[in-house]
Amino acid sequence: MATDTTGMTRVDHKKLTRFVSRNFEKLGVSAADAEIAARVLVASDLRGVDTHGVIRFQPSAWYVQWLKEGSMTPKPNIRIVNESPSSALIDGDKGMGMVVGHRAMEIAIDKAKKSGVAMVSVRNSRHYGMSAYYSMMALPHDMIGIAMTNASRLVVPTFGRDPKFGTNPMSFAVPTNRERPFVLDMATNTAAAGKLELAARLGNPIPDGWALDEKAENTNDPRVAQKARKLLPLGSTREGASHKGYGLGILVEILCGVLSGTITALNADQDPRGHFFGAIKVDTFRPAAEFKNDMDRLIRDLKSTTPIAGQERVYVAGEIEFETADERGEHGVPLHSSVLKGLRDVGTELGVAYDLE
Amino acid sequence: MATDTTGMTRVDHKKLTRFVSRNFEKLGVSAADAEIAARVLVASDLRGVDTHGVIRFQPSAWYVQWLKEGSMTPKPNIRIVNESPSSALIDGDKGMGMVVGHRAMEIAIDKAKKSGVAMVSVRNSRHYGMSAYYSMMALPHDMIGIAMTNASRLVVPTFGRDPKFGTNPMSFAVPTNRERPFVLDMATNTAAAGKLELAARLGNPIPDGWALDEKAENTNDPRVAQKARKLLPLGSTREGASHKGYGLGILVEILCGVLSGTITALNADQDPRGHFFGAIKVDTFRPAAEFKNDMDRLIRDLKSTTPIAGQERVYVAGEIEFETADERGEHGVPLHSSVLKGLRDVGTELGVAYDLE
Repeated sequence: MATDTTGMTRVDHKKLTRFVSRNFEKLGVSAADAEIAARVLVASDLRGVDTHGVIRFQPSAWYVQWLKEGSMTPKPNIRIVNESPSSALIDGDKGMGMVVGHRAMEIAIDKAKKSGVAMVSVRNSRHYGMSAYYSMMALPHDMIGIAMTNASRLVVPTFGRDPKFGTNPMSFAVPTNRERPFVLDMATNTAAAGKLELAARLGNPIPDGWALDEKAENTNDPRVAQKARKLLPLGSTREGASHKGYGLGILVEILCGVLSGTITALNADQDPRGHFFGAIKVDTFRPAAEFKNDMDRLIRDLKSTTPIAGQERVYVAGEIEFETADERGEHGVPLHSSVLKGLRDVGTELGVAYDLE
Repeated sequence: MATDTTGMTRVDHKKLTRFVSRNFEKLGVSAADAEIAARVLVASDLRGVDTHGVIRFQPSAWYVQWLKEGSMTPKPNIRIVNESPSSALIDGDKGMGMVVGHRAMEIAIDKAKKSGVAMVSVRNSRHYGMSAYYSMMALPHDMIGIAMTNASRLVVPTFGRDPKFGTNPMSFAVPTNRERPFVLDMATNTAAAGKLELAARLGNPIPDGWALDEKAENTNDPRVAQKARKLLPLGSTREGASHKGYGLGILVEILCGVLSGTITALNADQDPRGHFFGAIKVDTFRPAAEFKNDMDRLIRDLKSTTPIAGQERVYVAGEIEFETADERGEHGVPLHSSVLKGLRDVGTELGVAYDLE
């Protein structure tokens, strides 16, 4: 497809999904699971969350490497360890987080269909990509979806020098009628690790309050920040209420890690991962149509807020990502030539014909 | 009890609870409910959350005024509108939030005892005081407790000029073994309204990032901020990721307001209120003893973090409040002479003998 002047090529998302899926199969993943994993990654690229997309499907990156070295199970025995009508503890058998997460969220949704609400905690999984994928699985069922994961130690507690927990994202998806669904997907620290990567790549400084240097002092250099691994919780400073971001990060570790038994914050090698999923069937509380109309009213009220000087619009959580997905769905996902080269190299090694350009 | 040099008198918390409870009874509240409401208020004073304590039980303040004018029901018919084994929608009949909230959290705990997890949404309630009171009710049952409430319009969306939602607090309480429980209780904006009140009273400036003035520009004057009613979401600026605090604030409105049908954000007179409660029985997932030991390990690891220069300790959510409650439980709750005068005046008007000094 077309290459533009910034070294980006637009790739059709269906083609991209097919290509990645075939490669996953060559790495030992079943056809059905390969399709799921590829869909999760490409959904990330579609929504503009490029750091969690096919940039992680490269010769020496995350998923490819882990499957090759055997630290991630290609055909995991995902099993329910404990369950009740509205809850389950699931063991992921070190399978791909996308596959384990997808299965766990399906279980949460099935249970919520019957019992109204459900919570599922997952142990022994791996990196699961973009949280919003799983929370959004609840939307077609008129359910509120919840997805969280712990992550490797990268964030310092308020007043602390050393990283003790991860960027631990949480996502909530809420169905609507005519408006786009409310989809919040946020790392519980100020700036997700991917934003540092981007700033480092572009040679841009980072704002105060994102990260500390080796001496635990504020830094504006993304490379220094990446090396030091001392990101700040949401709120950044005590005055900015970073104890709240710190508390939320630990809450995610509790629901994903302590409840499941996979506490990444206390794990020296910082793998495997734990997740937490929830599903709330709206009409357990109110008729779904009424609820969704009220969601529309709330969202329209927020969008109608007069912007401050210098801004054109007030957004609602998920709105920018939906607009990006529309645009990329139509015109293709923009991928940098280096990312395309990586995909081509993986395909060459595994014997999958490269057909993305 | 003793008066110190700052105009504060230490009052025994049991005596304070009894006094407030008797006054509630005179205002038409049943003895059992008066006791509950007084306990919630004084628990706030004990934990150092002075803005949600007996400072609101004054001749012209919140609870007293609302009961006198009849906008709050002294003997509410709190009823379950819908329920399933793991969920309920409750109508609070405009009763005192403390009474409605306490009952709703009891229902969540009862349901979680049987079904493992439970969620309860509440409509038609009033201001319920300190969120941590309700989440902490889950702790003796080896459950994780969740409590949230919507609040009157006071916070601007990211990029917005006008307040569209409340400080919408969320609280999570998690049981432990030897360590103090993890208790997070946070407004989803940067600084709770009470912090502005305190700064205004002391004549102190407020930091950047807490609030805007009438023109929607940053202000350091707490009086200007109180008048303008444009507080900033957690994160404060777009660079500081205020879209996350904004998203969390709306999430709380969705769970408390849209799910229940009492959407404070869309209500011109900003009352009544909606709440949301959750209870997760830990041993639905893992044996409670294992979970609580792992909580201890996590908390000890966080507390052992080396502090940054100028700080002596790294805290865990709830730790400061537990220490304050220990100290105040032993030595009495420090109340300002003006607050004591207000309590005395309420007692005089209602015919309750004043015995706090």
